[in-house]
Amino acid sequence: MSTAAAAPSFDPCDPVAVAQALIRCPSVTPEDGGALGVLEAALAPLGFVCHRLRFEEEGTAPVDNLYARLGTEGPNFCFAGHTDVVPPGELKGWSIDPFAAEICNGRLYGRGAVDMKGAIAAFVAAAARHVKAVKETGDAPKGSISLLITGDEEGVAINGTRKVLDWLQAKGEKLDACVVGEPTNPKALGDMIKIGRRGSMTAFLTVHGAQGHVAYPHLADNPLPRLARMLTAITAEPLDAGTPHFQPSNLELTTIDVGNPAHNVIPAQGKATLNIRFNDLHTADTLLAWLRERLDGVGGSYELDHFVSGDSFLTPPGPLTELVADAAERVTGRRPEYSTTGGTSDARFIKNFCPVVEFGLVGQTMHKVDEHTALDDLTRLTDIYGEVLRNVFDRIG
Amino acid sequence: MSTAAAAPSFDPCDPVAVAQALIRCPSVTPEDGGALGVLEAALAPLGFVCHRLRFEEEGTAPVDNLYARLGTEGPNFCFAGHTDVVPPGELKGWSIDPFAAEICNGRLYGRGAVDMKGAIAAFVAAAARHVKAVKETGDAPKGSISLLITGDEEGVAINGTRKVLDWLQAKGEKLDACVVGEPTNPKALGDMIKIGRRGSMTAFLTVHGAQGHVAYPHLADNPLPRLARMLTAITAEPLDAGTPHFQPSNLELTTIDVGNPAHNVIPAQGKATLNIRFNDLHTADTLLAWLRERLDGVGGSYELDHFVSGDSFLTPPGPLTELVADAAERVTGRRPEYSTTGGTSDARFIKNFCPVVEFGLVGQTMHKVDEHTALDDLTRLTDIYGEVLRNVFDRIG
Ligand SMILES: [Zn+2]
Ligand SMILES: [Zn+2]
Repeated sequence: MSTAAAAPSFDPCDPVAVAQALIRCPSVTPEDGGALGVLEAALAPLGFVCHRLRFEEEGTAPVDNLYARLGTEGPNFCFAGHTDVVPPGELKGWSIDPFAAEICNGRLYGRGAVDMKGAIAAFVAAAARHVKAVKETGDAPKGSISLLITGDEEGVAINGTRKVLDWLQAKGEKLDACVVGEPTNPKALGDMIKIGRRGSMTAFLTVHGAQGHVAYPHLADNPLPRLARMLTAITAEPLDAGTPHFQPSNLELTTIDVGNPAHNVIPAQGKATLNIRFNDLHTADTLLAWLRERLDGVGGSYELDHFVSGDSFLTPPGPLTELVADAAERVTGRRPEYSTTGGTSDARFIKNFCPVVEFGLVGQTMHKVDEHTALDDLTRLTDIYGEVLRNVFDRIG
Repeated sequence: MSTAAAAPSFDPCDPVAVAQALIRCPSVTPEDGGALGVLEAALAPLGFVCHRLRFEEEGTAPVDNLYARLGTEGPNFCFAGHTDVVPPGELKGWSIDPFAAEICNGRLYGRGAVDMKGAIAAFVAAAARHVKAVKETGDAPKGSISLLITGDEEGVAINGTRKVLDWLQAKGEKLDACVVGEPTNPKALGDMIKIGRRGSMTAFLTVHGAQGHVAYPHLADNPLPRLARMLTAITAEPLDAGTPHFQPSNLELTTIDVGNPAHNVIPAQGKATLNIRFNDLHTADTLLAWLRERLDGVGGSYELDHFVSGDSFLTPPGPLTELVADAAERVTGRRPEYSTTGGTSDARFIKNFCPVVEFGLVGQTMHKVDEHTALDDLTRLTDIYGEVLRNVFDRIG
């Protein structure tokens, strides 16, 4: 637990000012670059109790994380996000310094502007305004508001959200609902709430044979025709046709490697790697069984290793999804679609602790040069998060 | 043309002595190690006119070759072979120094003993005895006897037999029939005459797609399922069922390579290499058409490059094959099988100039440690080649 930080040099009620302060921290994953300090400086004066959590593990870089909570009562509503950003890439591709946070033509430019320092800034501003408003009414504040901010989402995600959640659990700290601030809107604010994500499994296939000379194939056993047939078998038909909230599961071959430079030699083995993004019809175990059935259909000696980056998850439409959708609709005039498309996020870890949805800025420029958000989007997202904070304790828990 | 060399320190009529002199030259491809000098020393005193031919080409090592001819009349019967040998490999695997040419238990040991210094020695001894015998009869010698010996058969085969043949053609020198001394007998002398060889073609397939992220496959085009289906298509059925003198043609996949280390990235392309050993039903062109038909059946963008190491060839049973089979049967009591199995040899070049067959020692220990030939095999092979020389001018040309 850290003591209250010095008063910030910006107004925490202004999402643009908070976003600029965050973008000016060069927090290229896994560096913190001062970003979590900016948040502490904004939150501590509002009454948030801030815990800086530094985790490390052999073979990985240490990572700073922040858990900040306002209030001690339940329910505990949590906003989750990451201050780390992907590298800016080719600097000459940028028309504006990626860490200068300059405003131009009504847009705020910089690495992390939409993914996701902008959304964090919107939530901080919404929380600051909310605290002020509650204080002005004189009513007792309901429940708790917390922020779970990691510096390890864009990297290996080992020393980040996963470990913060373990720390919370060990402490007996309960989360009751969570909104992750990832940029979920494809084109315009209000387009889309993510209510789940597909799971991701990577599998490594090795097919064994016996080396030999191409002129004497009866003395060898070429594993490559079997490898080709296995890869054909597992890509011949889709895994499923999708479910009410998920698109069809999808398998992609990512590499095939033998590395035999001799044109007259039959190799002893061949390897392939595949990645499956899967919906709620599957788990890693059912996928491995599906794969083995098809590999065994071809036959011969093979090995199949795997790792799971995240199981699929779904927060079925209900109080939390409606809370966020209503808020977005009230501010933007449009009802967001419920979606489970796209890549993984830290919601895959949070879903084991409480219902979780994702809603943030417009993702179009994320991870690209000239990443930027419209100032108007920042303002409206602040209003949406504010609407969520106003209603959350009446509608969940 | 070189002048007659000094008299040899061995009896050219003794195949064991000639073989020992050759094995003691460390002619690991492409080094000559003095081996061609041994042959000149044996042949020149018999009346052979010797031409040392040194060829080189940018990017390859220079290679020494020898063309030696006795007589100026046609027909010109040629014996072809190579004095270069493959490296001895692990020296500690050998029980006897690979270049000492020691005799032990009735066997001559050494690298090249069967492939193919032993056979060259047998031919030199047969020629020496033949010259002596003809001289003793007082008859005029018939036709010409020649030797085409290269130092580049086990290597890249660029500066060897192929260039000697070009040199002969430019000179107007004609070959009428040829025996290559490769070790053709699988188990015992008299087993097998090679009357042809399969051709060899290597093809390089590149399948193109569009790179992308595995979570957004609709924005990418994964080339690997197409590559797998193409490889399955070209290995699904045999090229043919064989012909009267050839085993079925055979296609082997030798490597598949993508080299994509990122498990979440769909690669832009995949590559595969294949080698086809093909019989007299095919040429490189018909094979490429066969491949393209199957690749086009899968569809999509691909490239197919290739190179041909040798077309298939066949010397149909006739005067030359019978000449050699009769000689082998007379000496060994067994009628050799006509075969077209096994890898390529320099006969693939000679076949464009005259009928060619291959017959030599027993191949069991070729390219292995403790390579050796039975002394009895050396003696009987000398007798077989002698029988060939006695009858060749009555039966061919
Ligand atoms: Zn993000
Ligand atoms: Zn050979």
